[in-house]
Amino acid sequence: MGKKYVYDFEEGNAKMRMLLGGKGAGLAEMTRIGLPVPPGFTITTEACKEYYRRGPKFLDEIWSEILSHLRKLEEKTSKKFGDPNNPLLVSVRSGAPVSMPGMMDTILNVGLNDETVKALAKLTNDERFAYDAYRRLIQMFGSIVMGIDKNKFEKELEEVKKKYGVKYDAEIPAEGMKEVVERFKRVYKEETGEDFPQDPLVQLRRAIETVFKSWNNERAIKYREIHEIPHDMGTAVNIQTMVFGNMGWDSGTGVCFTRDPSTGETKLYGEFLPNAQGEDVVAGIRTPLSIEDLKNRLPHIYEQLKKVAELLERHYKDVQDIEFTVEKGILYLLQTRTGKRTAQAAIKIAVDLAKEGIITKEEAIMRVKPEDLRRILHRQIDPKAKDSAKVIARGLPASPGAAVGRVVFDSDKAEKLGNSGEKVILVRPETTPEDIGGMAAAQGILTARGGMTSHAAVVARAMGKPAVVGAEMIKIDLENREFRVNNVVVKEGDVITIDGSAGEVYLGELPTIEPKLTSEALELLSWCDEYRKLGVRTNADTPHEMKLALEFGAEGVGLTRTENMFVKGGRTEIVYELLLAETSEDRKKALEKLIPLQKKDFMDILEVMDGKPVIIRLLDVQFYALVFADPEKLIEEYYKKKYEERVSEEELERFRNIINRVRAIRDVDPQMGFRAVRLGIVYPEVYEAQMRAAMEAAAELKKRGQNPILEIMIPGTVDKNELVYLKEIFDRVLREVQNKYGVDLRVMYGTMIESPRAAFLGDKLAEVAEFFSFGTNDLTQFMFGWSRDDAERAFIHAYLEKKILPYNPFQNLDEFGVAGIMKICIEKAKKTRPNIEIGICGEHGGDPHSIKICHKLGLDYVSASPYRVPIARLVAAQAAIEEKMQSQ
Amino acid sequence: MGKKYVYDFEEGNAKMRMLLGGKGAGLAEMTRIGLPVPPGFTITTEACKEYYRRGPKFLDEIWSEILSHLRKLEEKTSKKFGDPNNPLLVSVRSGAPVSMPGMMDTILNVGLNDETVKALAKLTNDERFAYDAYRRLIQMFGSIVMGIDKNKFEKELEEVKKKYGVKYDAEIPAEGMKEVVERFKRVYKEETGEDFPQDPLVQLRRAIETVFKSWNNERAIKYREIHEIPHDMGTAVNIQTMVFGNMGWDSGTGVCFTRDPSTGETKLYGEFLPNAQGEDVVAGIRTPLSIEDLKNRLPHIYEQLKKVAELLERHYKDVQDIEFTVEKGILYLLQTRTGKRTAQAAIKIAVDLAKEGIITKEEAIMRVKPEDLRRILHRQIDPKAKDSAKVIARGLPASPGAAVGRVVFDSDKAEKLGNSGEKVILVRPETTPEDIGGMAAAQGILTARGGMTSHAAVVARAMGKPAVVGAEMIKIDLENREFRVNNVVVKEGDVITIDGSAGEVYLGELPTIEPKLTSEALELLSWCDEYRKLGVRTNADTPHEMKLALEFGAEGVGLTRTENMFVKGGRTEIVYELLLAETSEDRKKALEKLIPLQKKDFMDILEVMDGKPVIIRLLDVQFYALVFADPEKLIEEYYKKKYEERVSEEELERFRNIINRVRAIRDVDPQMGFRAVRLGIVYPEVYEAQMRAAMEAAAELKKRGQNPILEIMIPGTVDKNELVYLKEIFDRVLREVQNKYGVDLRVMYGTMIESPRAAFLGDKLAEVAEFFSFGTNDLTQFMFGWSRDDAERAFIHAYLEKKILPYNPFQNLDEFGVAGIMKICIEKAKKTRPNIEIGICGEHGGDPHSIKICHKLGLDYVSASPYRVPIARLVAAQAAIEEKMQSQ
Repeated sequence: MGKKYVYDFEEGNAKMRMLLGGKGAGLAEMTRIGLPVPPGFTITTEACKEYYRRGPKFLDEIWSEILSHLRKLEEKTSKKFGDPNNPLLVSVRSGAPVSMPGMMDTILNVGLNDETVKALAKLTNDERFAYDAYRRLIQMFGSIVMGIDKNKFEKELEEVKKKYGVKYDAEIPAEGMKEVVERFKRVYKEETGEDFPQDPLVQLRRAIETVFKSWNNERAIKYREIHEIPHDMGTAVNIQTMVFGNMGWDSGTGVCFTRDPSTGETKLYGEFLPNAQGEDVVAGIRTPLSIEDLKNRLPHIYEQLKKVAELLERHYKDVQDIEFTVEKGILYLLQTRTGKRTAQAAIKIAVDLAKEGIITKEEAIMRVKPEDLRRILHRQIDPKAKDSAKVIARGLPASPGAAVGRVVFDSDKAEKLGNSGEKVILVRPETTPEDIGGMAAAQGILTARGGMTSHAAVVARAMGKPAVVGAEMIKIDLENREFRVNNVVVKEGDVITIDGSAGEVYLGELPTIEPKLTSEALELLSWCDEYRKLGVRTNADTPHEMKLALEFGAEGVGLTRTENMFVKGGRTEIVYELLLAETSEDRKKALEKLIPLQKKDFMDILEVMDGKPVIIRLLDVQFYALVFADPEKLIEEYYKKKYEERVSEEELERFRNIINRVRAIRDVDPQMGFRAVRLGIVYPEVYEAQMRAAMEAAAELKKRGQNPILEIMIPGTVDKNELVYLKEIFDRVLREVQNKYGVDLRVMYGTMIESPRAAFLGDKLAEVAEFFSFGTNDLTQFMFGWSRDDAERAFIHAYLEKKILPYNPFQNLDEFGVAGIMKICIEKAKKTRPNIEIGICGEHGGDPHSIKICHKLGLDYVSASPYRVPIARLVAAQAAIEEKMQSQ
Repeated sequence: MGKKYVYDFEEGNAKMRMLLGGKGAGLAEMTRIGLPVPPGFTITTEACKEYYRRGPKFLDEIWSEILSHLRKLEEKTSKKFGDPNNPLLVSVRSGAPVSMPGMMDTILNVGLNDETVKALAKLTNDERFAYDAYRRLIQMFGSIVMGIDKNKFEKELEEVKKKYGVKYDAEIPAEGMKEVVERFKRVYKEETGEDFPQDPLVQLRRAIETVFKSWNNERAIKYREIHEIPHDMGTAVNIQTMVFGNMGWDSGTGVCFTRDPSTGETKLYGEFLPNAQGEDVVAGIRTPLSIEDLKNRLPHIYEQLKKVAELLERHYKDVQDIEFTVEKGILYLLQTRTGKRTAQAAIKIAVDLAKEGIITKEEAIMRVKPEDLRRILHRQIDPKAKDSAKVIARGLPASPGAAVGRVVFDSDKAEKLGNSGEKVILVRPETTPEDIGGMAAAQGILTARGGMTSHAAVVARAMGKPAVVGAEMIKIDLENREFRVNNVVVKEGDVITIDGSAGEVYLGELPTIEPKLTSEALELLSWCDEYRKLGVRTNADTPHEMKLALEFGAEGVGLTRTENMFVKGGRTEIVYELLLAETSEDRKKALEKLIPLQKKDFMDILEVMDGKPVIIRLLDVQFYALVFADPEKLIEEYYKKKYEERVSEEELERFRNIINRVRAIRDVDPQMGFRAVRLGIVYPEVYEAQMRAAMEAAAELKKRGQNPILEIMIPGTVDKNELVYLKEIFDRVLREVQNKYGVDLRVMYGTMIESPRAAFLGDKLAEVAEFFSFGTNDLTQFMFGWSRDDAERAFIHAYLEKKILPYNPFQNLDEFGVAGIMKICIEKAKKTRPNIEIGICGEHGGDPHSIKICHKLGLDYVSASPYRVPIARLVAAQAAIEEKMQSQ
């Protein structure tokens, strides 16, 4: 006996993909596990390859093998090819080992002819349907197999519609369909010189050959080139029985989810239209029944569906979205695929499947997408409402979530109204640390300027507050208390809705969906904690944010910014003093006032985080930047004062002094200017004051019997000597504080790694630093030599469009450059100090793509803003599981 | 026999430094080669160590050994210790193996007492001198050996001066000196309870012990700690005969250079004061003779000095600066050291010594300091005039050299006056490419703002034009055409002098010294070319600069900036068009006009450099930066127009439009903004136009039979894909140009390495780039995350003062961070493309410290501004020679 070229569905399985193609192997698998699939057989890819080697005559050689499988099919279905009473109809479909959707040919309804069409009409009691099926066969066969111009058929169809005065195909009556068939047969004859073949076997054979040929049609070749699919795989051909749901009231068609895709509840969910075909559902003329109704209507089908659902879930280990047809009381599955679901359902389903033993906990964790968690953590605009609402302005999606409130243009007012229970949106040109009170009291923030790392964006993310920033199209008029965008004027007090996930602004109130960490989500996250190796800390500046992060499972604080401790609660005057101070003594005088205030701030923080590590980052920006966001504005203001407000010469003079001071000291390149540890080197008294405030706070708590775990972090280091210089101050202040409070205090001393030089000299820095925290925002800026603000405003879009970069490196950690140098840094640092604690506190710490890289780099922890803590726990677990799977 | 602890000078040599100390070994060496050194002997460091092990009694053990050497010394000098007619006097000096200047003790005139002082008076015929010597001995011995408070002696001295009514010690007459001696002896007795020891041997022994002890005095210990000198080395003690030049007219004292230290001429140079001691020369009462005069006065001494000079030069292989004394017709060398010399002399001497066979060519090259070359290449303010002139303002020393001229406040006027032969200094708040004409016509440039990499600084260095930039203390009033600094008002037309090497501004004209590359310098540089491995190219933008660089020995152009080709000669209007263009088509229209103009520019360049490689860097800054240095100024101008000039509403509107445009597109962080290759990715038509202009220029020259060697360089790359994207355009344009001109053109395609990411991914970039050029200005900025402007203005000084960094990394290549990543880049790149051409075009390319690192890194060439080309040739040779020496 020769080689076997034809397989019944019963003879194959899922693993025979190369031989049977993807579709053939799938049908075989479903048949094998006992699912009611319309029977059929598959001609192998080997046959296709032989066909290309030997040409059309090869089909002669395997024809008897095909015929013998056709006979078996007739037996199985109790139908016969060409039988004028109960005809067998089949589809002939391509199916390559690799999916090439829509690239190759398919012919349906093979087996229909002038006789069998009548039988079909009788069996379905639907003449229109039967002739429609027939004309479709002639059309497909004519154009695909015989190469007739499709427009020839379309023209005839149009004429018939005109004749019956209808607009859509579906409105053509049975008589009309019969006429279409006649016209199509005529076109067929005119174009090919022969009649449409009435012999089903001739139809079948030509359809098979056409599918073989379609492997090498132009678009398929092109597709394979683009997707790098080998050209010598060949396609299989699937011949499958057609089934019809319109053969009476014991027939019908439906779709069914094995669980509720919007809640995740464990019940069949879907709809069923009796005595109908799939097209009827689409047409929407009749209202379908819910699947529940089948219980009464066709109870055995309902039961069978339930069993099928269980079988499918156990087999495919996930919720399935099934298309099925019932033909005369017999259930046929036409298709099954993984069911789409909402974020909330996705999480519930994963957890339930694990509890039911269908999947493992690991699989459940892998199943949930970080995006799912993000969705349920933030208020969303109701998708239904969103479609019909009009966006009045767009900006950068700086902090996710939706917010609704009255527009307010200054922070004091926002704070007052917000704290009195009013819902407000703070709208500002941009924000400074002075605006923090107003931001905290507002529902959301909208700014006209600034990028993804602007003050507004960073603080809003930390607060979990929706924010749209850099919406440059809105023109804010602070004097008249309104903003304009195109022709819309929005006055203070008007209600707007902002979508911080999309960067959109809407006029009026849009309905929103409440965020909720469901019990399933909490359970899933607790599983994650069993698997992950990465610790998860949070970037948070206030006790409030830290409490939230603790609820979300944070194990410590990876970054507390201290800038706000200089300006909040009326401390701005002290910053002015620092700004205008000429000597170290002047600065010390101002700092004396700050220390007790900041000590209190630190105590509040350390108390919330009792027993968990808290990293305090020392001052990172110049004094002027704490109070003036934009020195250019100062100049405009000056001229307004001078020429419009006509203020006194004296006041003008004082103002000019401040401007001159700011001008003299402000940076040409703020991101690379006089900031970070450079402040501590030039003004060591400032860093000393901060160290003292933090250490005194810890000492006092310790004295009270609490367990503060303080880590002090130097930002922006480039050289070991910076750390050495400040470590002397650190050690001295620590001794002094210990003596003053009479307690033993252990405080860790470490640094951010933000410059490529620091990363490159990790071994040297680790001689002094007990911990590292990668500041990947800056590290990315400096590795590229790109300012994030400028990049996202001016050129990143072109880099992504032209595929020069695969992603925005400010959102997703650059795995080649930035992660490359991080790897070197870590290796070098561990040589010097094997137990060095290494984390990441750049915003990448909350980004899934980046967290996986952090796992691979072997970091001790990632630190993310509170709302991203759950996401970090999830992705950290996924990374650990992926690694385990790869090593198996 | 025991260990030998005492060595006559004749017994030692230069190699016995550990045993005899530095001074002892030096005296022994000089004695050994036959120089007339006052005889003496050395007590070894071993003795000192034994003294510390065994205490004072050890001195007893070696006392007889010391005495036997003392006897020999008496024989050699025909003098005797304590001889009332011809007494031997000695100095007792410390001398450790490592120089510790001033840290340990010295006692002179040991051997004087009440008797021998009379003999000294008689022998020198100078009673005052003898008693002065004696009182000095008592004073030194009293304070150093016996620990008497110095003030006690000073008080007595003061009283005697008062008594004689004189102000200075030197004015005390002989009688007075005798009284001082008496008073000092009284102090000695009062403080110690014993008389000043009259026995010279007692004096000697105690002096020796005191020197031993001084090894462990506090300041010596501190000094050793700071300089990491081992504490157990011990010091030697040198006992040397005192000689006196004031023993008659056949005695005297002098200093002598073996060659003329200001011209380098080969002749003895110096002065001689007969019958005098060194102190008399210092006192300046009598005028010394020139060394030439010795020919007649003491011809045998002159001849002996000539021989000594030759001997010394051959022995020490360099010009020596000798101190000598003639005592009764006998020449004694007191000291010889390497002679200081002017830059011009240094070069001549090195070349002459090599030609005379005293040193090798390699030694001659190593002998010349880069600073020497720099000095003779730039006009200098005459040092004599400089001391008395008053600096009216200081700024950054942006481009070396001195310039004198009339102040002019705008570039057009500077250009007009300058080209008509007037000497002008262009004074501007800062400069833009529009000012280039004026800068070229001016003698020098002074700006009030900007750092070492500001436009003014970079262009001035390239032009070799003296410049002082960022002189923030000068307040320029453009309207009134004057600047103020403190209380000085300088009006247009006033003459000033600037010193670009020191960053100083003077009122009026100061005399200057012409620069000159002497024939010896040219010869030396030609020797350098035989040794160096590094190629030397130049950074130059104009044919004029390139010609200059060729004269200085440049082998090609490593960097041609193309920004000026957009604005010079009235092209600014085209930049406005580009600035306001909304579409690629609009930009193309504007560029059409530029291409033929720039083609001409490129032809001029390629013609000058015919046969030598020329690297063209494509546009590196945004259009607005080509014309507006400071957008903030625009705003001030706007308000002036509005409220002061009261211009028409229309004009105001147009101005506001430009401001808005600039505001919308300008960078937040200019150094990391939308510039460099990002321009080429977003506006590929701009890079295409530049490529076309350059390639057409090369093609046309080639057609004319010339040999243009064009290399096109992409700035600011971060990823291989940027290079791939632009390479397609490059290849297409090259094909088009070749077809148009019918010539075969080979153009190299390469990139600057300016971002750490590019350096780190050197292997990837080398897949496309045929050459790399390190842009270490930016690479340093990004490795550190420091903007040079901000760093040098605000914090570098603190880093250097506090010794956190050993040098300014913007001036001297950072060998740990920046050079570290360069090394990685080079290694990776060579793996991909072993023959890749790698150079450096950052300003470090002209800095000696950095050039040595470049040599070690194995770069193909350094590229420096024209005036630094000779320095680069020199240092490159020195680096190669150093390497050779180290490998031997």
